[in-house]
Amino acid sequence: MSEPAESDGAARRGRGRRPAGEDTRATLLEAAREVFGEVGYANATVRAIAARAGVDAAMVNHWFGGKQALFSATIQMPPEALATFERELGQDPAVVPDRMVRAFLTVWDEHNAAFRALMRGATSQEEAAARLRDMLSALIFRRIAAICADDRPQLRAALCATQMVGLGLMRYVIRLEPIHTASVDALTALISPTMRRYITGPLD
Amino acid sequence: MSEPAESDGAARRGRGRRPAGEDTRATLLEAAREVFGEVGYANATVRAIAARAGVDAAMVNHWFGGKQALFSATIQMPPEALATFERELGQDPAVVPDRMVRAFLTVWDEHNAAFRALMRGATSQEEAAARLRDMLSALIFRRIAAICADDRPQLRAALCATQMVGLGLMRYVIRLEPIHTASVDALTALISPTMRRYITGPLD
Repeated sequence: MSEPAESDGAARRGRGRRPAGEDTRATLLEAAREVFGEVGYANATVRAIAARAGVDAAMVNHWFGGKQALFSATIQMPPEALATFERELGQDPAVVPDRMVRAFLTVWDEHNAAFRALMRGATSQEEAAARLRDMLSALIFRRIAAICADDRPQLRAALCATQMVGLGLMRYVIRLEPIHTASVDALTALISPTMRRYITGPLD
Repeated sequence: MSEPAESDGAARRGRGRRPAGEDTRATLLEAAREVFGEVGYANATVRAIAARAGVDAAMVNHWFGGKQALFSATIQMPPEALATFERELGQDPAVVPDRMVRAFLTVWDEHNAAFRALMRGATSQEEAAARLRDMLSALIFRRIAAICADDRPQLRAALCATQMVGLGLMRYVIRLEPIHTASVDALTALISPTMRRYITGPLD
């Protein structure tokens, strides 16, 4: 049993600094996730986010164009997370049911602050909920359509989404034991049979 | 396929008025769920919530004692929802795996504004996350311990929680189709086999 890393920021700061521009952008994103989480979208100011990041407020406009665009960026799946997910899932659709849980946990154990920001946004802003719907469709619908057992890929993908997002919510947000600290191997073994039935099994 | 009722408030107002005191308290709770949802806890004021409810701000202190206690009340499971859940689940632990999904959907289809408030709170305030953990333990841990197939009732209850809360998140908050508008009967048939395996099936 290992505790997931507490935040992207802590892990990132531990790895040393990146090139200045990218670093400023990433630092602003981390600060924005914290401030939006603490005071909500309406009450968060560009000035407060810039202060938290230790940069001039003009940097927010330079890198993101404004508060709404910065918020949008905080609720997107980080590009490196998307790459990890695609790599873990592989190219063969037939292995998707067995690999989906491990790919999901591998990504979000690494980026759990981003997952919390996404959930916080999705429960309070329709824009974030719509983005999560789009993300789920883009990431899993296509793959499931290629292998599912009947002509209901959207239903099957949506059932997978209920299980996967619920798993993430309990592991990273609600921190319900033993889900919060269980190993990726253990959770993969426990939950993959559910994914297999939702994707390729009989449903009725 | 039927659309879940859009909010507790709409259903409640349709049923006519209750005794004055209880009515003021319920109206304040509805207004508080709306205002906390719109602007977040930090930015919500007692004055704004009272104005939304159409009552004097002194009523918040009278009925709840202040903003924090009012917030706590908005993220509790409504007493009538708890009664419905207990009734739907029944007294025989052996039927829990088959009835859990139906009981969950019956309760939250009726009280979906309360579910959204609970999720919004749980993703942004540790107090609300802790309350959700307690609620899940109180509602399902004891029942599952009575019937589960081995000495891991907490793991089994937590697995059930990942599936149930994920289902509620997709149905009431993210509104992912076809989960959002599917009938209770259809979702019960689709998801109950997952609950049966998590509670009484082999896990390894």
